[in-house]
Amino acid sequence: MQNFVFQNPTKIIFGRDTISQIGQESRKYGASALLVYGQNSVKKNGILQTVCETLRENGVSFVEHSGVKPNPVLSHAEEGIRKAKDNKVEMIIAIGGGSVIDEAKAIAAGSKVDYSVWDFYCRKKTVQQALPVLTVLTLAATGTEMNGRTVLTNEETQEKFVIGADPFYPKISILDPTTTFTVSREQTAYGAIDAASHLMEVYFTHSDDWFTPIQDRYSEGIIRSLIDASYCCLEKADDYNARATIMWGASLAWNGLAPSGVGRWFTPNHLIGMGMSALFDSPHGATISVSFSHWLSWFMKQSPENKARVEQFGREVFLLKESEFLAERTIEALKNWYSKLGSPIAPNELGLDYAKMKLVAKKIESFAHFWMLPHYHSDFVLSLFYEKEFIRNQ
Amino acid sequence: MQNFVFQNPTKIIFGRDTISQIGQESRKYGASALLVYGQNSVKKNGILQTVCETLRENGVSFVEHSGVKPNPVLSHAEEGIRKAKDNKVEMIIAIGGGSVIDEAKAIAAGSKVDYSVWDFYCRKKTVQQALPVLTVLTLAATGTEMNGRTVLTNEETQEKFVIGADPFYPKISILDPTTTFTVSREQTAYGAIDAASHLMEVYFTHSDDWFTPIQDRYSEGIIRSLIDASYCCLEKADDYNARATIMWGASLAWNGLAPSGVGRWFTPNHLIGMGMSALFDSPHGATISVSFSHWLSWFMKQSPENKARVEQFGREVFLLKESEFLAERTIEALKNWYSKLGSPIAPNELGLDYAKMKLVAKKIESFAHFWMLPHYHSDFVLSLFYEKEFIRNQ
Repeated sequence: MQNFVFQNPTKIIFGRDTISQIGQESRKYGASALLVYGQNSVKKNGILQTVCETLRENGVSFVEHSGVKPNPVLSHAEEGIRKAKDNKVEMIIAIGGGSVIDEAKAIAAGSKVDYSVWDFYCRKKTVQQALPVLTVLTLAATGTEMNGRTVLTNEETQEKFVIGADPFYPKISILDPTTTFTVSREQTAYGAIDAASHLMEVYFTHSDDWFTPIQDRYSEGIIRSLIDASYCCLEKADDYNARATIMWGASLAWNGLAPSGVGRWFTPNHLIGMGMSALFDSPHGATISVSFSHWLSWFMKQSPENKARVEQFGREVFLLKESEFLAERTIEALKNWYSKLGSPIAPNELGLDYAKMKLVAKKIESFAHFWMLPHYHSDFVLSLFYEKEFIRNQ
Repeated sequence: MQNFVFQNPTKIIFGRDTISQIGQESRKYGASALLVYGQNSVKKNGILQTVCETLRENGVSFVEHSGVKPNPVLSHAEEGIRKAKDNKVEMIIAIGGGSVIDEAKAIAAGSKVDYSVWDFYCRKKTVQQALPVLTVLTLAATGTEMNGRTVLTNEETQEKFVIGADPFYPKISILDPTTTFTVSREQTAYGAIDAASHLMEVYFTHSDDWFTPIQDRYSEGIIRSLIDASYCCLEKADDYNARATIMWGASLAWNGLAPSGVGRWFTPNHLIGMGMSALFDSPHGATISVSFSHWLSWFMKQSPENKARVEQFGREVFLLKESEFLAERTIEALKNWYSKLGSPIAPNELGLDYAKMKLVAKKIESFAHFWMLPHYHSDFVLSLFYEKEFIRNQ
């Protein structure tokens, strides 16, 4: 086990009928807020109304900032920062999924400085402070409701970057699984896939010190639960326990516990997915299933240790029996899960042909240095997805 | 899954050569501390010296309060409170295991009030504030280094009570597994057993809503890791990875995550163990192995659901195969672990005969109302351990 520091101060309020607690909780942080949300869904399902009512009852005034996009963009965050500054709000309240919360974090940090918030994302500046961020989660996937990370896309430069900082940990996150009853089958699938992938990036990190049984069981257990629960949700959209499992599982998947003790981490799948999203606005979960389906086959061939790691994943997550082809069967089981959920396996299912993936590969190369990955050069990425074509094009 | 609130702000600094960070970290909380520790072991192994040096280097003055007993007692805590008040210290730094940290928490809260700290433990008063508590852990077991709980024994009334409060969460806990290389085989065993039992109390809590796969896998995974690692430590006392697994496992076992979503919890094993410790100063881990060995057999007979729960534990923790006697084999496997570690199974191994256990049973009854348990009456407790004698004595 490697040395680590772990601290996660976010207060989680989890369960049915908990959203109205946001009013009372927000009072601890001031009397004025910027309410950040996305499209009309939070209006339709009444969540926005519940939040507004409880804020009014608790004497918290607010300004609204709606229209956050999936894969949130810099220009919209900048608009939110202007509103936050103009109205001198004391906190940011996000109502939505990962995109909304990530943009809320950008606004929270951007409101405290007089330069562009993008300077943080491209590592020119370091986040020292931010307005308090409070969240009401309505989509289980990214884990941003319980971590200090935020992802933003710069439309002009077609860059999608992630940064982390202590002030980004939400003060309060309210997780009511019933808010996800109306999430589409597609988004439910992408959410479960994204959550599982956060654990998998850590789990498959190559390390000379793989004696991390606590972390292994932690990740395997959550992934196993996410897989089971995702099938239940597709069967019955309002299965409370299954929705609760995905919601809490997604938070635990990326709250800092899994990597603690594992050492250097991140395999390149999020990087590859971000390249696809930045250029072609592909849904994050879909890019992840495409990437892992190919990368894992490459990974297992690199060393006997890697293969053993894949085999352990198969035994513990899919409960596969020992066999000569356990590693291959594990990857098949994973792809099978992706397919059953309707998530793509091949780039062409996302409309990304060889030419487009070539652009993705180049794009990844341009920002891979942030990730300090050993294998990120364009040819390698391309070969993952188009091995034959790649060889043909040599 | 049940509704819950989860928040755990403790900062964990984990790994080799981390103890000297206590100096720099403590500066954030003031310039004077009460150093709380137990017997001579922290002097012998040089940990105390390392802490004192780094405190001096960082300009933190300190007063020492040594001699904390296993099963820490009120009178000694009161002495610490007097020292803390007289010297107007700004923080309490605990160097030791669960007993030392628990007494440090008592001192931290007692230093803020002008009445007896025991008023908190017997629920006459509620803890509103406490001096910051920082810890350097040297024994993996109770999890107090990462939670808001403290246990104290009142020698006069022979009561051993546990309380929880937000100000009790340590600000910083430094966990260096190498500090446990010199822990005796007996204490290592008791520590692993205690840590596993915290998860088991939650795991076997009866609930009508047992759909908690995330929490189940979490607990099973940590217990499985603790069992494996405990064997490794008995084999090789300075097995770093095994020591690290027990240390981090013990913290995760009782940091609030396992019960989150499980609903009403605590089976009566800690209560029973505390009765034994309060009257006869029995080691906590030893009382736990005695209690669980008997209680679990009773528990599985109460309902098919209970039996299924025990079977699941056997499958997931001990990797036992399906069979007609899976539940019985699970309990045998658990007892086998206890025995191999040298921990007792029967009360007489602790010198507790029928007459003494009768006193224990009466003692438990006198403070069981704090625990709100359905089955705590004296006869029941006694019958767990002396079924035949109990029937004979009817």
